[in-house]
Amino acid sequence: MKLKDIGEFALIENFSKKFFSKPLPKGFVGIGDDCAYIPSESLSKGESIAVSCDMLQENVHFIKDEIGGENLGKKSLAVNLSDLASSGATPLGSFLSVALPEDIEEDFLNNFFKGYAFMSEKYGCPLLGGDTVKSLNGITINVTVLGKVNRENVKLRKNAQPGDFVCVTGFLGDSACGLDFVKMGKNHRPKEADYFISCHHNPNPRLEEGKFLSQFSCVNSMMDISDGISSDLKHILKESQVSAVVELEKLPLSSQMRDYWGFNLKKMYELATSGGEDYELLFTVNKTQFANLNKLFQEKFSKPIYPIGKITEGFSSEIIFLENTNPINGFSNGYDHFTA
Amino acid sequence: MKLKDIGEFALIENFSKKFFSKPLPKGFVGIGDDCAYIPSESLSKGESIAVSCDMLQENVHFIKDEIGGENLGKKSLAVNLSDLASSGATPLGSFLSVALPEDIEEDFLNNFFKGYAFMSEKYGCPLLGGDTVKSLNGITINVTVLGKVNRENVKLRKNAQPGDFVCVTGFLGDSACGLDFVKMGKNHRPKEADYFISCHHNPNPRLEEGKFLSQFSCVNSMMDISDGISSDLKHILKESQVSAVVELEKLPLSSQMRDYWGFNLKKMYELATSGGEDYELLFTVNKTQFANLNKLFQEKFSKPIYPIGKITEGFSSEIIFLENTNPINGFSNGYDHFTA
Repeated sequence: MKLKDIGEFALIENFSKKFFSKPLPKGFVGIGDDCAYIPSESLSKGESIAVSCDMLQENVHFIKDEIGGENLGKKSLAVNLSDLASSGATPLGSFLSVALPEDIEEDFLNNFFKGYAFMSEKYGCPLLGGDTVKSLNGITINVTVLGKVNRENVKLRKNAQPGDFVCVTGFLGDSACGLDFVKMGKNHRPKEADYFISCHHNPNPRLEEGKFLSQFSCVNSMMDISDGISSDLKHILKESQVSAVVELEKLPLSSQMRDYWGFNLKKMYELATSGGEDYELLFTVNKTQFANLNKLFQEKFSKPIYPIGKITEGFSSEIIFLENTNPINGFSNGYDHFTA
Repeated sequence: MKLKDIGEFALIENFSKKFFSKPLPKGFVGIGDDCAYIPSESLSKGESIAVSCDMLQENVHFIKDEIGGENLGKKSLAVNLSDLASSGATPLGSFLSVALPEDIEEDFLNNFFKGYAFMSEKYGCPLLGGDTVKSLNGITINVTVLGKVNRENVKLRKNAQPGDFVCVTGFLGDSACGLDFVKMGKNHRPKEADYFISCHHNPNPRLEEGKFLSQFSCVNSMMDISDGISSDLKHILKESQVSAVVELEKLPLSSQMRDYWGFNLKKMYELATSGGEDYELLFTVNKTQFANLNKLFQEKFSKPIYPIGKITEGFSSEIIFLENTNPINGFSNGYDHFTA
């Protein structure tokens, strides 16, 4: 069966009933009316609603038959939850808009909603509404997520301080490496490709890590890594009117990355700085508190924080990359969707 | 200059600075971080956040060179504000995601943001965030709006009562007639087309009317008319487990509509019931209170409420259309984006 045989209204109703069986929290009103409703009692004094949205386009952000319905469903929500993570927010709900070609297979849609529902349930973020429209060319997905934050804990990009350590929560570059393998086509990939492609197609939003880090006043700024640190860190630098040095040797690289690329350090550094879609958290920490924060983080998550550089004085918002303490050139500035 | 020369990040920053100069309400954080923030103090006890989103696709929902940048910007927000109107909500802010082809003209974008900003200002709905991505095929727009409502005043679709009058806030069918003229092409249109095309390209969300109507307990259910009453009223009937009769003579038709179509009543009734995109409010009122409500509405808005039919008993969720008290057949069931 294809979408044109199912019809728009049946689609929304059927899939929401099929995959989202859990009752909504008290006072919430979800799919079925012109608006969804979240009661003010969901928020405490001193809290704010955090909102973010991300749009994904077929053949720009994903290749349908490579990612598959289930991972596409998961990733559509995950990349949005990653934005909530960077603000230390607790999810309240999501809104899913999809433009779908008429000839899309019901199986694909089933898997898409299954994946989306899995991620919704895993992170406690119910689907509250959305829109479904016809597309003449490929799939477009837009997700809007709402969460709640303790306002005092929000780490804006503009608060990085000279002297802060620049840190990340996990490995960089695996997703970008996966994208390279995706582009290579199924028949030309090495056997090691699976791990990297899975990192690319199935990212994990760092919601728990974000909530934990946001409680500490020594964390001065935070964002998630969607375009690569070369590009993302620049946003922090620009908003905070500071500069930074990043030590390439300190970039956390997975054992899979090191095994595959061997001595090709330049390639690994490129993937880790400019590739994007890591969906780890990028944050700056007052250096005097770093050791203590790292200890507490390790106790809670059984993994370390990775310091990769330092915030420096300087309005130019420049990142100087160091290799064995020597400044080096030749790193591009992350992924800009229009000029890349 | 084209989009590919401007770049993604410059786009978001430049346009938001250029057209959205008004400071945000106290405690709000808008464009520039991973999330936007709305403080809990924006909501009073007993209020809920109302959220809605709509997606518009080029060549499905609009033809770029017909609607033009400015009207597209206005309409993108207007159709979402119309959803807030049907819940009696006061807007809090909007989120705009756009997928844009690389060769889109800067002029078009300027006009788009100008139109969007105009509508934002007119209805007090600041742009708080969004996303901008590259499209390989045409423009896709998704807008998410947030508003606040007094929870007790929300009119869900499920509360229509047998005996209620079915009412609308204004003329039906003008927009659908405009769409027909758009499809006709610029060289084949009569001179009367301009009025109808303007109705189609530049709808007005009925926010004030929605807020007013939602205060009355005699208004039992409400929604906005986006797909045509044949389709939209069915949602109310289905949710409320009732049926309805609609008297075709009572459909409010503009003088322009009557002048253009003359004696072709069937065509006018078709446009008014099945065309869609009227963005008037469709609601049901306890009949004993109708006269009083209509009087108060007229005093406030200098225009009447239009009763077009009645809710009846019957789980079948059927609409019986009457012409001179005779049931007639042959009206389609509104616009379903996939099966139409």
